[in-house]
Amino acid sequence: MENQGLTMIFTGNGKGKTTSALGLAFRALGHNFPVSIIQFIKGSWKYGELESAKRFEELLDFHVMGKGFTWKSENLEEDTKAAREAWDFAAQTILAAKHRLIILDELTYLIKYDMVPEQEILAVLKQKPQTIHVVITGRDASQGLIDFADLVTEMTEIKHPYQKGIKAQKGIEF
Amino acid sequence: MENQGLTMIFTGNGKGKTTSALGLAFRALGHNFPVSIIQFIKGSWKYGELESAKRFEELLDFHVMGKGFTWKSENLEEDTKAAREAWDFAAQTILAAKHRLIILDELTYLIKYDMVPEQEILAVLKQKPQTIHVVITGRDASQGLIDFADLVTEMTEIKHPYQKGIKAQKGIEF
Repeated sequence: MENQGLTMIFTGNGKGKTTSALGLAFRALGHNFPVSIIQFIKGSWKYGELESAKRFEELLDFHVMGKGFTWKSENLEEDTKAAREAWDFAAQTILAAKHRLIILDELTYLIKYDMVPEQEILAVLKQKPQTIHVVITGRDASQGLIDFADLVTEMTEIKHPYQKGIKAQKGIEF
Repeated sequence: MENQGLTMIFTGNGKGKTTSALGLAFRALGHNFPVSIIQFIKGSWKYGELESAKRFEELLDFHVMGKGFTWKSENLEEDTKAAREAWDFAAQTILAAKHRLIILDELTYLIKYDMVPEQEILAVLKQKPQTIHVVITGRDASQGLIDFADLVTEMTEIKHPYQKGIKAQKGIEF
């Protein structure tokens, strides 16, 4: 089959997971593919890309879910509710088939922290229309996600500027 | 120091090296940073990003070096000459300090195949103005590059769609 929607995962502890997803969005937009980016953790998409995204406003939808949901809350019930709502929105977006690339940024944490069952997420991915590519980012991707995916890259941190005491740099980390 | 130009390396055998660099370009462009992308191997930047780049033409320079130089030539002398010219151009671009982000895509191969001495490349990187971030991509980054860099991520292939016999997909791989 020529047109085959891929499921891709960028996982691991290194820099480059969300940035790679962003690069794929940049590539897909050049083909005039409608792209949806759904951010499960507030703050993982930064000022730079939000500004650049404005140049593609007819093609690119950005959705920041969770209303400040950072997984650091003490209120587990509220966190789980926010995660559930975010996932329901993502599932609807996938099944609606209006985009050609859907980025589920930091989705792995929903499974890791038992917010949404892995089986439920896999059930939606299995129904994904063939026209759609999905990218999932986040540390500690579950084995079920890895087994299902077509492409998995693990990003491993070999060296990080914080180790040298260098502060986060504008245009690179935000 | 607040403003500190970083040297970043994306290496390893997995997908996501060039794509991460592209994501960083997308972020930096949102800050109105002038960006130069220098491609040492023809073809690693694809139709999608070249089209998207047109929306940033006042900020983004794309340079495809080597005139078809693909490291598969039988003519080692010609390859080495092309690599030398490409590196000289990159060195001038770095020292000219007109950009805030410079991507040296697939630079690692120049060292790996003894086209340009590592020491010569390191000498230029050490003179890099503090206003400039440099991103180097490519497999098998040399130890000298890794030692010099501020950030190094290794991308490891866990799973690739070719393993399932899936063809390269428009908007994802080109």
